[in-house]
Amino acid sequence: MSIKLGPNRYGKAENRVVRVTKTGGVHEIRDLNVGVALSGDMDEVHLTGDNATVLPTDTQKNTVFAFAKEHGITSPEAFGLLLARHFVDSQPPIHHARVSLEEYAWERVVVGPGDKQYSFVRSGQETRTSRVHYDGENAWVVSGLTGLVVLNSTGSEFHGYIKDKYTTLQEAYDRVLATEVNAEWRFASEPGDWDKAYREVRGALLEAFADTYSYSLQQTLYAMGGRVIGAVPEVCEVRLSLPNKHHFVVDLSGFGLQNDNEVFFAADRPYGLIEGTVLTEDAPAPGPAWE
Amino acid sequence: MSIKLGPNRYGKAENRVVRVTKTGGVHEIRDLNVGVALSGDMDEVHLTGDNATVLPTDTQKNTVFAFAKEHGITSPEAFGLLLARHFVDSQPPIHHARVSLEEYAWERVVVGPGDKQYSFVRSGQETRTSRVHYDGENAWVVSGLTGLVVLNSTGSEFHGYIKDKYTTLQEAYDRVLATEVNAEWRFASEPGDWDKAYREVRGALLEAFADTYSYSLQQTLYAMGGRVIGAVPEVCEVRLSLPNKHHFVVDLSGFGLQNDNEVFFAADRPYGLIEGTVLTEDAPAPGPAWE
Amino acid sequence: MSIKLGPNRYGKAENRVVRVTKTGGVHEIRDLNVGVALSGDMDEVHLTGDNATVLPTDTQKNTVFAFAKEHGITSPEAFGLLLARHFVDSQPPIHHARVSLEEYAWERVVVGPGDKQYSFVRSGQETRTSRVHYDGENAWVVSGLTGLVVLNSTGSEFHGYIKDKYTTLQEAYDRVLATEVNAEWRFASEPGDWDKAYREVRGALLEAFADTYSYSLQQTLYAMGGRVIGAVPEVCEVRLSLPNKHHFVVDLSGFGLQNDNEVFFAADRPYGLIEGTVLTEDAPAPGPAWE
Amino acid sequence: MSIKLGPNRYGKAENRVVRVTKTGGVHEIRDLNVGVALSGDMDEVHLTGDNATVLPTDTQKNTVFAFAKEHGITSPEAFGLLLARHFVDSQPPIHHARVSLEEYAWERVVVGPGDKQYSFVRSGQETRTSRVHYDGENAWVVSGLTGLVVLNSTGSEFHGYIKDKYTTLQEAYDRVLATEVNAEWRFASEPGDWDKAYREVRGALLEAFADTYSYSLQQTLYAMGGRVIGAVPEVCEVRLSLPNKHHFVVDLSGFGLQNDNEVFFAADRPYGLIEGTVLTEDAPAPGPAWE
Repeated sequence: MSIKLGPNRYGKAENRVVRVTKTGGVHEIRDLNVGVALSGDMDEVHLTGDNATVLPTDTQKNTVFAFAKEHGITSPEAFGLLLARHFVDSQPPIHHARVSLEEYAWERVVVGPGDKQYSFVRSGQETRTSRVHYDGENAWVVSGLTGLVVLNSTGSEFHGYIKDKYTTLQEAYDRVLATEVNAEWRFASEPGDWDKAYREVRGALLEAFADTYSYSLQQTLYAMGGRVIGAVPEVCEVRLSLPNKHHFVVDLSGFGLQNDNEVFFAADRPYGLIEGTVLTEDAPAPGPAWE
Repeated sequence: MSIKLGPNRYGKAENRVVRVTKTGGVHEIRDLNVGVALSGDMDEVHLTGDNATVLPTDTQKNTVFAFAKEHGITSPEAFGLLLARHFVDSQPPIHHARVSLEEYAWERVVVGPGDKQYSFVRSGQETRTSRVHYDGENAWVVSGLTGLVVLNSTGSEFHGYIKDKYTTLQEAYDRVLATEVNAEWRFASEPGDWDKAYREVRGALLEAFADTYSYSLQQTLYAMGGRVIGAVPEVCEVRLSLPNKHHFVVDLSGFGLQNDNEVFFAADRPYGLIEGTVLTEDAPAPGPAWE
Repeated sequence: MSIKLGPNRYGKAENRVVRVTKTGGVHEIRDLNVGVALSGDMDEVHLTGDNATVLPTDTQKNTVFAFAKEHGITSPEAFGLLLARHFVDSQPPIHHARVSLEEYAWERVVVGPGDKQYSFVRSGQETRTSRVHYDGENAWVVSGLTGLVVLNSTGSEFHGYIKDKYTTLQEAYDRVLATEVNAEWRFASEPGDWDKAYREVRGALLEAFADTYSYSLQQTLYAMGGRVIGAVPEVCEVRLSLPNKHHFVVDLSGFGLQNDNEVFFAADRPYGLIEGTVLTEDAPAPGPAWE
Repeated sequence: MSIKLGPNRYGKAENRVVRVTKTGGVHEIRDLNVGVALSGDMDEVHLTGDNATVLPTDTQKNTVFAFAKEHGITSPEAFGLLLARHFVDSQPPIHHARVSLEEYAWERVVVGPGDKQYSFVRSGQETRTSRVHYDGENAWVVSGLTGLVVLNSTGSEFHGYIKDKYTTLQEAYDRVLATEVNAEWRFASEPGDWDKAYREVRGALLEAFADTYSYSLQQTLYAMGGRVIGAVPEVCEVRLSLPNKHHFVVDLSGFGLQNDNEVFFAADRPYGLIEGTVLTEDAPAPGPAWE
């Protein structure tokens, strides 16, 4: 049986870099988890173990930390672009770089009359993410977030679905709708301010979830994607993965109690999982953006 | 070899109950994870499998949900007390109940001009906790939090320690100090408002961490414990477990870069772990409170 | 800005089904985690919330359990094929089904002279996986495993790589090589016995890791993929994701000790991550197999 | 409000040390996670930040790695005793040491006709544990395991329990009994061979679980504890924590199917949790062994 090498990549995952910037006594902090994945002329290392075209993952790690000092971290997206361009542009055997980033949010601790200038507390449930691709010519940027947990305690129904031999679900005319928003959005062009774009998308996701009267989680998903595109004109595509965090109404009738959508069992598994894409009519081809 | 039964308890762990309260169209939400552990006349069930004194864990679960409807959830502590008293007072073979609770925080989603009345987003990194004991006569209440991650980017030193044959650590006169606060505090008497007490303790922990110039994490721990006791007079004892979330200064000198405490590697393992107790001089004996 | 719906799917994730088969007093057990994802005529549910084409995820769950009774579970792959065909063939709006499966291994408890006929203990570190696609006409099957952790305490080198401004890594002529094997393999045709194929692939992965003298983890990856294809003729493609579980030699020279590759620090993050594909020269196009 | 310092300890947690021993070309491997916690004259460091009595956690880490080279690792228990004695006996301000250990099991990879002499695969689901205390005079040793998952597909009943207002559970005359065994056992005196003692205890736990016809998980717990004490005479106390991994019979009657204890839903939360102690009549006082 004759075999061959297919697609491959390698790199250093989960470089945890924290960058402090000091302006007088006032400190700022950015806290990232950076993953690098490179590909290119890598036949020999696979076939014979010849490492002549391999930039070691240890060197990639060093570069992440050195760049944090040399260039600062103004946003995950900008930092990812710097790194991706460096690896491809400086090493001829490397043809493609993907940089994946997570950012953890911090806010200042407030003490007495004002903020403490160098004290911080981790904030928020969600993690900001970004994926950057660069092939020596073009760059692709996707931003995202994971772990944004939301719940509407009313304003949701579910009925009119297919019934078959295995159907036992009762139709619902008032239910809790809860999900953990995992979203990524692709940029057709760079916004002026990556942090501002992130805040606007996050706000659009929350608002669309909250003010959509929902007949299905799919409908809510589509509304959320559309709201994001309306909020940030540079975004051309939104991908959403929404696990349905089921909150089951507990039957208390056996105990002489009426449960009018007041007491719920928050279930873990199994769960519905709704995934979908919303994009502009004129969205450019994604290329490797989502890989 | 003659054997005997020693201490034992049993119950239903991790009952995930969500309680919605509706005032007109305005909803409130409390989201708990409740664990029950009972003990009493349990020799027979261990020795022979006779279940005559066993209140099934399934029934305990039902009770948690029924009580959420009947009594509402005004705070984890109050809900835990209700449950603990019920199990012991209603079942003669049950002599002791421990109820352990976690609470997950939600805040309202803001849409346009105001809050959405039934839309919520999970907030904060930390989890509020409580442990309640009741033995038919007395009750003990411990409150707590886990996962409150804080960082001072300066204002911390570490030197003057023991040096031995295995010492390689360099003394530090300016370092990052970061930890994940895991704290529990015991009440000598009930405060009027459990939620207010929680907010005040959380604030005291943050403030003490932020404005203590630190020569060791132990010193910071003691300051945090003392501040809590000063903030809420009903608290008589504070237990803190503070993992040292090491942020190592990355040596960039080989790359021609000077790293003046600006770029850090956030390490996972191993980590320093500092644990300690601060209590009032006249703290009553804890009894089973910490079990 | 005009928007449209892109690719989407929905289903019930993580259905934990355990199937016991009894032959006289001898029991057999299969323990699966099953995820279903369906797609088809789903425009309306996204655009308007009309659920007329939606087979609820609750019904999908019921079907998983009912099929476990009706058809038994002879292997994850065969069970996945049954389910995927059912959803597409029985519901006209459903055009495509993906079924993802994990299987947890159990072995019999041995008591005294022989196996206990209905007592089992979970075994092994790895989880067996499978993904099945069906579009009404064709089916695609991928099998896999995750979490198979292996280590060679010698027989590995790493040198001859690119050096640049950020290089600090020393070349290694004897190192520990350890990884957690995450592998998936695609079938060009169905083997007669899915369980036998799994055992043969697992064996091939272990053997190739163990007896490849390694100059890079990429080289080991390629050898592992090739060995799998050689072992099971129906396999046409292997995808491997190999995190380099770094074991760093601890410098003990300051303590008057020589560490001749005997004492290692097992590091967590960051880690090298090597990913690659090995396939036969005549592998058919994968279609949706890897989605 | 006057405050004081209560019990405290500090140390380095989760030192991941791997020790390879080479006899000719045949390698052996021990893979540990070691935590150190020290206490003693620690008032000043808490009250003023004076570190004069503090042996840094970094030095503790170095000692773990140096001892792995100097003394080897013959068992977790023996290695823990060496470390605990070192810290207390070498540093006057340190009065007490606790060393906590986890061990991960590896077995040889078999290739062709025989074992590979330096290739290993992680094996088993369970983690071996140990806790060692030393106060300058006496030592206490506890061994244990976590994560040993077992299941009986018949041979278990549950009935005759208390019924109250909140009871809905049906009595069961044939059910699946499954649990994840978390056990610790205390030694009154040192056995000759710690590894042999571990294997014997593990075997006793499995056997007792498998061949006890069970009317309650408490009864099974007591049988398991007693069997351990019978198997290893140096053991004087066993503590077991047994989460009831519920396997619910799925009601398939609505689909025209009879489920004769063949198809189960393996549930996550909530779960019953049974905890208990079995000890010899003449067990010595535990001292700090369980802290």
